[in-house]
Amino acid sequence: MSTLLLNKIDDVKSNIKNWKKDNLTIGLVPTMGALHRGHASLIKRAKEMCNKVIVSVFVNPIQFGPNEDYDKYPRTMEADKKICEELGVDIVFAPAPSEMYGQGGKLSNNELTFVCPPYNLTDCLCGKSRIGHFDGVATVVMKLFNITTPDFAFFGQKDAQQLFILKRMVKDLNINLTIIPCPIVREDDGLALSSRNSYLSKEERTWALSISKSLKEIEKLYKQGITDCSILFDTALSILDKNLEIEYIEFRNFDTFEEVKTAANNTLAAMAVKAGKTRLIDNIILV
Amino acid sequence: MSTLLLNKIDDVKSNIKNWKKDNLTIGLVPTMGALHRGHASLIKRAKEMCNKVIVSVFVNPIQFGPNEDYDKYPRTMEADKKICEELGVDIVFAPAPSEMYGQGGKLSNNELTFVCPPYNLTDCLCGKSRIGHFDGVATVVMKLFNITTPDFAFFGQKDAQQLFILKRMVKDLNINLTIIPCPIVREDDGLALSSRNSYLSKEERTWALSISKSLKEIEKLYKQGITDCSILFDTALSILDKNLEIEYIEFRNFDTFEEVKTAANNTLAAMAVKAGKTRLIDNIILV
Repeated sequence: MSTLLLNKIDDVKSNIKNWKKDNLTIGLVPTMGALHRGHASLIKRAKEMCNKVIVSVFVNPIQFGPNEDYDKYPRTMEADKKICEELGVDIVFAPAPSEMYGQGGKLSNNELTFVCPPYNLTDCLCGKSRIGHFDGVATVVMKLFNITTPDFAFFGQKDAQQLFILKRMVKDLNINLTIIPCPIVREDDGLALSSRNSYLSKEERTWALSISKSLKEIEKLYKQGITDCSILFDTALSILDKNLEIEYIEFRNFDTFEEVKTAANNTLAAMAVKAGKTRLIDNIILV
Repeated sequence: MSTLLLNKIDDVKSNIKNWKKDNLTIGLVPTMGALHRGHASLIKRAKEMCNKVIVSVFVNPIQFGPNEDYDKYPRTMEADKKICEELGVDIVFAPAPSEMYGQGGKLSNNELTFVCPPYNLTDCLCGKSRIGHFDGVATVVMKLFNITTPDFAFFGQKDAQQLFILKRMVKDLNINLTIIPCPIVREDDGLALSSRNSYLSKEERTWALSISKSLKEIEKLYKQGITDCSILFDTALSILDKNLEIEYIEFRNFDTFEEVKTAANNTLAAMAVKAGKTRLIDNIILV
């Protein structure tokens, strides 16, 4: 079977209708394209678990703030399609913004129905600097869920806050699917894979290596029995390259998303920094 | 087949799973109970169109404001069940609030994922006095849609703004069902049926008769060629009983929900008034 590249919602739906008749299970891997080995790991997991796999490639305008990188976000459709073909993806769904939000683009909450995750989960960490970001994410993911009606949807743990929020959305709104979290994939030198890494200059990239190094050190100390988050925080701070602009370093209970002062099993240590103009995030879950 | 009364989401889902295996179509009639002939008309329509019919009976706390009638809203489960049995309903789904929102009740947008319809549709008419009402409606309806996965969902035109908002939600979020609007059912003397009519004293009820009378007069004038909404507005005002407290009388294009100054085909004439402490709404669509 070859990979179908579809741009229209109705075409996706009619394919899925046939799959459902045959009782085939469906896996969805939502992406913004510029696929890397991180995405590939999600797709491979989906292939293992599901009869049919859909990869959506959509740079979603409503999750970008006005001063963010929507326009310059990398778009590499040809390469993305090739990766999906090699991995045996059944459908690549790559809609135009007008297909998702109508001609003329109803993009604001004046004009469009939004899915709004709990403030408690969105007014912190990445949500603090990216106002409305998670509303935009939840809304497009809800749309993709309804378009593709998957049994399983695959999300990377790299976007830990997003993962937590989407799991909550599924629970709160009784959505009929299971979210499968997938581990962070890293370069050999530790840098977490991200489509935005392509923005980094050679120099910025060397600064960025200190991010995963600081998380590794947090993990090491935690395993040695150091659970005081202020110590873990200071350790990270001392390791992070001085050229990085730190947005946050936080410790959260990954079952409740509450901030913790004492690390324990399933504590999320998460950070966001800027290397030059490029915003990078990374995290680790302590076990 | 007798009518099943179910309180648990999982029990509803397991019944539906069997129906889907047999390719049966499902109709959902979401209600807050206190069923009257208006609801019965929705149920009958659902029975005509669908193999299986589910009626949900749930007084939804998150669509009531702090000073509204959540506590005193009529709850008549025994009578509701009997009506559903007589009409051949397959499942009456009557969950407790804790079944829908968890033990302890995550009810605020700090704690719960909400579906938020466009501000343009919610900051007017009933939404102006009932802050957050339509977010609560959209959220519970989304939950009910996901729990019952209907092919068709039936809503009365009496709640015209709600109907418009839910149709928009279905479109905006690519929900896989069709909303079927059903006409307003009235008493012989013209009063639109509402579970809240039971609050009315005998005197208030006579005042309330002027509501449908004023809408009838608007319709009559429109059919005579009078399309100036300010004239239609003044006419309604002159007919409405002076004891009623008028909240709004508005004219909207029922395709776009934009306010209109000149009535035309598909103009919604809608009003909300208070008779004593009881808030009543009614409307007419001009054709």
